Amino acid sequence: MNIKNLIENNKYLEARKEIIKLNSVDIANFLEDDVNVDTMLILFRLLPKDMAADVFSYMSIDMQKYIIQSITDKEIKSIVDELFLDDAVDLLEEMPANIVKGVLKNTSKGRRDLINQFLNYEEYSAGSIMTIEFVNLRKEMTIKDALEYIKKVGLDKQTINTCYVIDKYRKLEGIISIRKLILNDENTLIKDIMKENYVYINTYDDQEYVASQFKKYDLTSMPVVDKEHRLVGIITIDDIVDIIDQENTEDFQKMAAMEPSENEYLKTGVFKLAKHRIIWLLILMISATFTGAIIRRFENTLQSVVILASFIPMLMDTGGNAGSQSSTLVIRGIALGEIELKDMLKVVWKEFRVSIIAGFTLAVVNFFRIYYIEKVQFLVAVTVCLSLFFTVVLAKMVGGMLPIIAKKLKLDPAIMASPLITTIVDAVALTVYFSLATFLLGI
Amino acid sequence: MNIKNLIENNKYLEARKEIIKLNSVDIANFLEDDVNVDTMLILFRLLPKDMAADVFSYMSIDMQKYIIQSITDKEIKSIVDELFLDDAVDLLEEMPANIVKGVLKNTSKGRRDLINQFLNYEEYSAGSIMTIEFVNLRKEMTIKDALEYIKKVGLDKQTINTCYVIDKYRKLEGIISIRKLILNDENTLIKDIMKENYVYINTYDDQEYVASQFKKYDLTSMPVVDKEHRLVGIITIDDIVDIIDQENTEDFQKMAAMEPSENEYLKTGVFKLAKHRIIWLLILMISATFTGAIIRRFENTLQSVVILASFIPMLMDTGGNAGSQSSTLVIRGIALGEIELKDMLKVVWKEFRVSIIAGFTLAVVNFFRIYYIEKVQFLVAVTVCLSLFFTVVLAKMVGGMLPIIAKKLKLDPAIMASPLITTIVDAVALTVYFSLATFLLGI
Repeated sequence: MNIKNLIENNKYLEARKEIIKLNSVDIANFLEDDVNVDTMLILFRLLPKDMAADVFSYMSIDMQKYIIQSITDKEIKSIVDELFLDDAVDLLEEMPANIVKGVLKNTSKGRRDLINQFLNYEEYSAGSIMTIEFVNLRKEMTIKDALEYIKKVGLDKQTINTCYVIDKYRKLEGIISIRKLILNDENTLIKDIMKENYVYINTYDDQEYVASQFKKYDLTSMPVVDKEHRLVGIITIDDIVDIIDQENTEDFQKMAAMEPSENEYLKTGVFKLAKHRIIWLLILMISATFTGAIIRRFENTLQSVVILASFIPMLMDTGGNAGSQSSTLVIRGIALGEIELKDMLKVVWKEFRVSIIAGFTLAVVNFFRIYYIEKVQFLVAVTVCLSLFFTVVLAKMVGGMLPIIAKKLKLDPAIMASPLITTIVDAVALTVYFSLATFLLGI
Repeated sequence: MNIKNLIENNKYLEARKEIIKLNSVDIANFLEDDVNVDTMLILFRLLPKDMAADVFSYMSIDMQKYIIQSITDKEIKSIVDELFLDDAVDLLEEMPANIVKGVLKNTSKGRRDLINQFLNYEEYSAGSIMTIEFVNLRKEMTIKDALEYIKKVGLDKQTINTCYVIDKYRKLEGIISIRKLILNDENTLIKDIMKENYVYINTYDDQEYVASQFKKYDLTSMPVVDKEHRLVGIITIDDIVDIIDQENTEDFQKMAAMEPSENEYLKTGVFKLAKHRIIWLLILMISATFTGAIIRRFENTLQSVVILASFIPMLMDTGGNAGSQSSTLVIRGIALGEIELKDMLKVVWKEFRVSIIAGFTLAVVNFFRIYYIEKVQFLVAVTVCLSLFFTVVLAKMVGGMLPIIAKKLKLDPAIMASPLITTIVDAVALTVYFSLATFLLGI
């Protein structure tokens, strides 16, 4: 690569010229992955001030820490002052206390107070993800006044695509898109064209709720108000995209019986990874004791017809798979707001019918296979296939119901996924299996 | 509710007055969920023309079909003409052929050609999700010219927050944000402030790739170009949010061994639901045959020490859970672009170390439980716990590797999830278990 050659020949200024042509995201990736840390630091310090802050905001936490610890106080101040407030707050939330102290020491007073205020909002609340870089107008302004005002202050604002109309107590009165400002006559009063029927959120709302509102109303930004309906910040959709990914990752992790973690897999230590996994493995392992106890209760049945044991894995696996299909669909439906508590009966009735079809098909195929091909004794084959049918029906009912019940109990539906469903279904499946065997085979 | 009372007293015009104060999304929900279809149709026809199209675009496919079949050709034309082009195309993609024909018949010629062109882009490609409502400028324009031009054409455009600079062959030369137009002097030439180093996509790019570019570069819109780099459309982030949800839903479904489907659970028929589930259940059921065969091979071992059977569920479940934890993290890491093919060895080494910790902890707890509390014979307890340890290590290695191997083979990593991992791990776990038992217990 051209830039790399320039660097190898120590032509840093020429390399810089090439680098600043790139997008900030690509510069961050280049500095982080393609050169060693010393070269990274040299090149980083050569970047123009505003670009440096932007590139910095796209780097990994580890690299940010390294940079903060390697540059002068003056350089830190310049970066933190240039960063958008929400990026600065994100940065400080991830840093160890001594670095935070160092950074805040080097930040101008007004900004320091703001950062401290933001650090006080509860994690994952709307307050913690909002930004304060927005344009606020007054309803008595004309479009001409408004555009002049925007020209004056707009450079600092993260987004000017929507402007916010507030009264003298900072209470939010309406919103207006830049589009409307441009398309209307310049003498029009803001109050005549502002939208008074807008969607807003409160500082204490959970980020998951915020994301759902963005999706529901197809918005690109939303105002955040405090208890007195004063405008305190805005949330833009680019942050929402990250939150959607984050919430989905959390669901994936919970559904695979792990404690959720926001850290990237490759950047997480082995002990931390193990810690997040072991607790659920232990709980589920000990739950499986009950299943073992069931088998022990039927030890005599098993001893007389040992071949029964060879169908245990197939029964357990099919039951688990059938159940987790249902629970996954319902958990996802709840997460997307498509399934609500009141739909419980609809879900159960639907799962009942689906499970009859699926269970019947599987049982017939299985009967054909074990009776005609594997030449298993007729009554054993009947026992296995009847058990299979009941297991599938039961697994799908349990899988469909438990996530909704969890939701009703204010638990996260995602914990009612494959691992837990499997453990429950196993126990019932084996009870059915051995009871049927004892009865049909007359043991 | 007030509106409902007005409707019950047949005061439709007064109800209309209240309804049009609401957000289009809420109107759509109200009409769909809170009134019967006849009232819905009356109220819908009372809506102002542009609002009707907007409300229509937020309704479910079934309701849209019902409305299209119940209103006059003229009303259809007015709705289809008012809809944003991408919404109109989405609508037609979901409708049966006879309705599509009826709708197109009632659409103006130019729009019909455009719709047909859009319907030709491959499903899930950038072309199929883009919109053509954008503002295009010329680089010789001044900001003043540009703003005047926007004022003239801007009302029809879905977003004017970013404008696109094209040459006379429609080739894309640069992009410029409305923010820059407002903040700069009105005599500035577009070419002096436009951004020439922009991110773009091709019509044939897959929507998943498009979404990843949006996330990577924190964008709110992106230009779509054809093979000659001519600007043919734009994609806005509100559509990307839907795609992210859609892609995640697909992963959730595949990971629970289902064929993916875009349809809402409650709105999908029982047979369709069953169809999407049965094939994988069958494949996995038949794969479990191998596990059964392993048990049958060790029938003698089992007959001598029947208690061994009672630990099969615990071993299988723990192995399955341990494996799906690893595969879920790796699948998710690949989906988010955090894990790449070249990270294979890093992942395996990490999983190896995590599995040693997890396997050891589980084995120790389990030994304590079954030897000291359940008073199982010493050598049986050793067999069970050693098997448990090896099973966890093996499950995590398999779970960590298979998704990356799938990716290497150009398969979707999401199929290497819990169900398949469990089936594979079961077979190996039971082989280890019975081999160890035969050896240690001297059977």
